[in-house]
Amino acid sequence: MEALLRQSRSMCPFLSKTSPATLRSLSTTAAGHHVSPGAGSMSNLQVLARRCPIMGKALAVQSARCGSSALAGAFGGVRAYHTRVNRAKLHTSTPKEAQAVEIERANAVPFPHATKKSTGAQHAHVGVPPIPKPAKFDYEGFYENELDKKHKDKSYRYFNNINRLAKEFPRAHMASKEEKVTVWCSNDYLGMGRNPQVLKSMHETLDTYGAGAGGTRNISGHNQHAVALEGTIAKLHAKEAALVFSSCYVANDATLATMGSKLPNCVILSDSLNHASMIQGIRHSGAKKMVFKHNDMADLEAKLASIPPEFPKIIAFESVYSMCGSIGPIEKICDLAEKYGAVTFLDEVHAVGMYGPHGAGVAEHLDYGAHRAGKPEGTVMDRVDIITGTLGKAYGCVGGYIAGSAKLVDTIRSLAPGFIFTTTLPPATMAGAKAAIEYQSEYQGDRRLQQLHTRAVKDSLNARNIPVIPNPSHIVPVLVGNAEVAKKASDLLLEDWGIYVQAINYPTVPVGQERLRITPTPGHVREYRDHLVEAFDSVWTQLGIKRTSEWAAEGGFIGVGEAGKEAELPLWTDEQLEVDVAFQTMKTGQDVAGILESILEKEQYAAARAIGAAA
Amino acid sequence: MEALLRQSRSMCPFLSKTSPATLRSLSTTAAGHHVSPGAGSMSNLQVLARRCPIMGKALAVQSARCGSSALAGAFGGVRAYHTRVNRAKLHTSTPKEAQAVEIERANAVPFPHATKKSTGAQHAHVGVPPIPKPAKFDYEGFYENELDKKHKDKSYRYFNNINRLAKEFPRAHMASKEEKVTVWCSNDYLGMGRNPQVLKSMHETLDTYGAGAGGTRNISGHNQHAVALEGTIAKLHAKEAALVFSSCYVANDATLATMGSKLPNCVILSDSLNHASMIQGIRHSGAKKMVFKHNDMADLEAKLASIPPEFPKIIAFESVYSMCGSIGPIEKICDLAEKYGAVTFLDEVHAVGMYGPHGAGVAEHLDYGAHRAGKPEGTVMDRVDIITGTLGKAYGCVGGYIAGSAKLVDTIRSLAPGFIFTTTLPPATMAGAKAAIEYQSEYQGDRRLQQLHTRAVKDSLNARNIPVIPNPSHIVPVLVGNAEVAKKASDLLLEDWGIYVQAINYPTVPVGQERLRITPTPGHVREYRDHLVEAFDSVWTQLGIKRTSEWAAEGGFIGVGEAGKEAELPLWTDEQLEVDVAFQTMKTGQDVAGILESILEKEQYAAARAIGAAA
Repeated sequence: MEALLRQSRSMCPFLSKTSPATLRSLSTTAAGHHVSPGAGSMSNLQVLARRCPIMGKALAVQSARCGSSALAGAFGGVRAYHTRVNRAKLHTSTPKEAQAVEIERANAVPFPHATKKSTGAQHAHVGVPPIPKPAKFDYEGFYENELDKKHKDKSYRYFNNINRLAKEFPRAHMASKEEKVTVWCSNDYLGMGRNPQVLKSMHETLDTYGAGAGGTRNISGHNQHAVALEGTIAKLHAKEAALVFSSCYVANDATLATMGSKLPNCVILSDSLNHASMIQGIRHSGAKKMVFKHNDMADLEAKLASIPPEFPKIIAFESVYSMCGSIGPIEKICDLAEKYGAVTFLDEVHAVGMYGPHGAGVAEHLDYGAHRAGKPEGTVMDRVDIITGTLGKAYGCVGGYIAGSAKLVDTIRSLAPGFIFTTTLPPATMAGAKAAIEYQSEYQGDRRLQQLHTRAVKDSLNARNIPVIPNPSHIVPVLVGNAEVAKKASDLLLEDWGIYVQAINYPTVPVGQERLRITPTPGHVREYRDHLVEAFDSVWTQLGIKRTSEWAAEGGFIGVGEAGKEAELPLWTDEQLEVDVAFQTMKTGQDVAGILESILEKEQYAAARAIGAAA
Repeated sequence: MEALLRQSRSMCPFLSKTSPATLRSLSTTAAGHHVSPGAGSMSNLQVLARRCPIMGKALAVQSARCGSSALAGAFGGVRAYHTRVNRAKLHTSTPKEAQAVEIERANAVPFPHATKKSTGAQHAHVGVPPIPKPAKFDYEGFYENELDKKHKDKSYRYFNNINRLAKEFPRAHMASKEEKVTVWCSNDYLGMGRNPQVLKSMHETLDTYGAGAGGTRNISGHNQHAVALEGTIAKLHAKEAALVFSSCYVANDATLATMGSKLPNCVILSDSLNHASMIQGIRHSGAKKMVFKHNDMADLEAKLASIPPEFPKIIAFESVYSMCGSIGPIEKICDLAEKYGAVTFLDEVHAVGMYGPHGAGVAEHLDYGAHRAGKPEGTVMDRVDIITGTLGKAYGCVGGYIAGSAKLVDTIRSLAPGFIFTTTLPPATMAGAKAAIEYQSEYQGDRRLQQLHTRAVKDSLNARNIPVIPNPSHIVPVLVGNAEVAKKASDLLLEDWGIYVQAINYPTVPVGQERLRITPTPGHVREYRDHLVEAFDSVWTQLGIKRTSEWAAEGGFIGVGEAGKEAELPLWTDEQLEVDVAFQTMKTGQDVAGILESILEKEQYAAARAIGAAA
């Protein structure tokens, strides 16, 4: 045995890194019953072995061929009681059942390593009816324990009952219709959920085509609404084709899982701040995953360079990272993808409707002029291989999609179970989403006003020494740094001020980076904004939450109060917002707030007119 | 080396089942560059090793500790160029990039086994700018090849553009509004997609609360509609709580994946005909999976008995299997679950709305009287731990759910990424679904009429020697047995007869079991049914598709033409359908068809009145 172990160590890295003493003990100890892996008995080696794709398969084949005794022998004499006692006859009566158990018995010994307790029961004398009294697993106790853990680490989530009122946007009522609040954290960024054109299209479709699609896309659930919506999306992103899913969570999960599992030797490079849907999709693909540091091109390039050039690679990333508002370096990633032969997979979920002259997202925004002129060829958006987006945020409805080459889209359509085996979105939902995309691709007012409100909120909070995590996007994350305090701040804002801003805690953000995430909309006019800033200032004082200057005194944290750090310019430039002339005047010493507000009032008037015309 | 290999074989099942000659060749061949695994070079052993959870981790640790040379040595001298050439300096210029690459270089050699081509490029002289010309992966070629495979094995899917008309149910128009067809394969089993109460509720909610929920359940997307719908679902199934998901695909996937991954040592026992969503959820859980033969209780019991009693176990199964119409033995499974300490996970997707006095599904139907009397305690439904269902089939909308104990539901709510990180269903969708559930829990007419139409269609097809796969449910699967012919039959029905019945081919059903799947609804009155049977008879003749008698002559196949097989009685009894008196008369020799039709006409009249009253 000594010689065997010594020599085996040079074959198997697992054996080679384990001490001879441990291995000896693992190999010779008689099989005890230990449920948890790693408890130091023979059974643990078998637990490990069964998890191994090479050894696991070999074990299964072997046990099927030889019965379990050969297997037991191979692992040093584990007692394989299944071959000696006919369990089935103890507790079944019909020949059919006994027969099936015989097959089972011959084919596999699924848990030879955990048999002590059950062996006791099995060794009842043949002929005596068994009284099975197994120590059953306590499911309810397990659930309770899981929930306790969430309560203890303050990650347990209490949902707020928020009923957003279409006719009083951005107001909502709570469980009681009388109790009204201002919603400051919805992802209906542009208020398209109450857009008259969207609602009109939905009402009409509902009446003509009914409530639901009635089937999967393959079985009676494919219709003109799906065809038209996918056409509109493909056009929006200037891609050959698009495919709609139940949600963008499903779109990301299904597409990455399918690509990663089908492309041979595929490696998926994933930004460290990627959304859960992409993380799940990558995990589900079984492909090799390499996480690169958030927006770190050097790290990404190093990882790309380490992969053989002919291996397929997918770079999965976002344009706007929703919890911090940072923006992905899309063009640089396209450069690297081209250099190393990778596919780019860009999640524009928080950007569609919000950036670009047609609302196609950040990729479109980067070539603002070219897209405005209708010339997408050679632009950054044109270079991105796969764009995914949602119909449930800036477009105000629900659902998600991918856009890309015709062949890619047809492949996902043909292979992804998450697309194939599920009911199509309702016709009215698809019609509403199409109306929203078309509206936003023609009208710039909503997203410009949203950007102006964002600037105003960020400026006002900064002026009050409230710690806004700086970023160039429409997200206004305000740092708290503690889960309990963040929830308390959110509760106070709701109860005392009628302002709803959800606390964002772990696991959505790392522990210590808890925050309140504000999302202004075109509907957040001056009175709401002034009220918000007043409320934040008061709650910050009430709870003693750190101000920007306090973070600065500690050297700064995740961008807040970091000395010498150049502020990133907003992605929407003054020129694109058409406020450049006004701001130039401003810089010569005129009343700053006055000018911004007068611009805003003008924009709001235009927006109201646009909605009126649509109604 | 010979001695080493010989002795290592008794340690490692992989090595022991591989011939010494092969192993020798694997171990001593110099590393060539072969992308595909199994091509017979050193690199293949490494590819396998890296996939192994034991060896893979050991390799990573080793390479991090010692650089790649130790690793290379262990695998027979693979050349680890990464430690010798500073790649980063060849193609980056900023210190930041170089630094990051240094870190990468020191930490891992991700692909030492596939370096031949890239090594060529890397050995450029330091100082000379590199011209990277990698042999990139051909993505478009890959997609094309995948699609070609689908075309070749006839599993490529062509979607039919079907626009179901709410006011002309069960009629629909094709791409052109003039081209109308009768839909015979929708899962809007009860026509609830056009139910006036459902539509009214949706219109009102749309006007008051807008098109979309505007956020995840945790961030501004939780509302009274979600609360009310989940309350209605919990009440329907007589469970403590319920949770709504984007779809039942997501509900099944997210719930099984979460339970299977969280419960320690969990084993999931899965019926062999389970839906793709459950199969994916089990796969995503990473838990041990045991597939039992479809509805085979002896096989299930043998598998349960083989698992240590204290291990958590989930039995995942369906009530109505949608492609064959068979029904799961729910009560027997509950018995086994109780005996062996397992949790029952029952998918009632094709049964909710359709069975039971309140439409709660087959589990409710099994104790028809008790549930009708409002006494769910101790019933089969009461014993099932987790019930999953859809809002997108008999309830006519979209979405899915789970129902179970409060703690279970809260655990899934708190842990499942597929629930947490996605936008809530639109308020109008949830309101419509709630209206549909409530309507169907009070009114039995639709599902009874659906069952009567099902009986009528099955009887008429059987009378014409058309091979209906027998089953006790509302599904009418008609056996074709060939993918190409099934598609051709479907096309002919559509083009020549204006009848839409989708062909069901692999992978939805096994190769050789291709079928047309008919789903009658309350709207399929006599003229439609007569037309359907006429069309099938004609197409069967035209294409020479096997009749029941021909299958019988061959000994029968999957229930069709199988001699001596007792016909299963329909789940809905004559008494429950209140046709028992009529059928007794019938048996004494009266006109069978006449009686059934007169019952149907009476039922249709009642249904029309119910809808009229609802409007």
